[in-house]
Amino acid sequence: MSDCLFCKIIAGEIPYDKIYEDEKVLAFLDISPINPGHVLLIPKEHFDNTLETPDEILAYMTKIVKKIVPAIIKATGADAWNLGVNNGSGAGQIIFHTHWHIIPRLADDGLKHWPGKPYPKGENKIIAEKIKQNL
Amino acid sequence: MSDCLFCKIIAGEIPYDKIYEDEKVLAFLDISPINPGHVLLIPKEHFDNTLETPDEILAYMTKIVKKIVPAIIKATGADAWNLGVNNGSGAGQIIFHTHWHIIPRLADDGLKHWPGKPYPKGENKIIAEKIKQNL
Repeated sequence: MSDCLFCKIIAGEIPYDKIYEDEKVLAFLDISPINPGHVLLIPKEHFDNTLETPDEILAYMTKIVKKIVPAIIKATGADAWNLGVNNGSGAGQIIFHTHWHIIPRLADDGLKHWPGKPYPKGENKIIAEKIKQNL
Repeated sequence: MSDCLFCKIIAGEIPYDKIYEDEKVLAFLDISPINPGHVLLIPKEHFDNTLETPDEILAYMTKIVKKIVPAIIKATGADAWNLGVNNGSGAGQIIFHTHWHIIPRLADDGLKHWPGKPYPKGENKIIAEKIKQNL
């Protein structure tokens, strides 16, 4: 797509720091990393988000995650990592081309996870039932 | 594994709110949801984390994510969703059985994403090179 930032990166129209490339995917450094070595993995074909991305491409992306994560960990000295995918603007998606965040984690990085809280009594049964009815 | 909480759930030894089950995976409500309808998707076979999980299982998990997300969105009224995977205790993993968080997002949920910051000049080139050398 001509107005998509990631399509422009794929086309070589914008400079970027490549980590990995093959015929189906591209991985490169996020320019504003949460931690150094924060990588974005994208399919070369344009899809707006993960739900729109064909099964075979998503399957391939998981394979490439497993390939590049050990290299990110070795290079950064991280001992853990997060995979994060934001789907929809309400979930923090800014570029509407499927991209998966791979974030190396360091013991002293201070990043806090979102807090959870238990369901009010019975609410879990109601919501589980609603989800199942929509499957 | 006998001491794994999620293996006990799979074995039916602990009550839980099932969303979806087939021969390979199980999806159920997180008991301490970030937002109502927060679902965990796990493989039925025990693997400690995503890197340890075979390619074909991860591929299948992405397929099931695409199947259950629309139902979660319909049931909760969410308009966006996050996929989150914590790998290693330093990344917030608590149960060492592969699990993917599917978190419906609501416009007013107030959840903030971790901030990024640009690399000091030239640091991006150094880290990209290091990662590539370890591939």
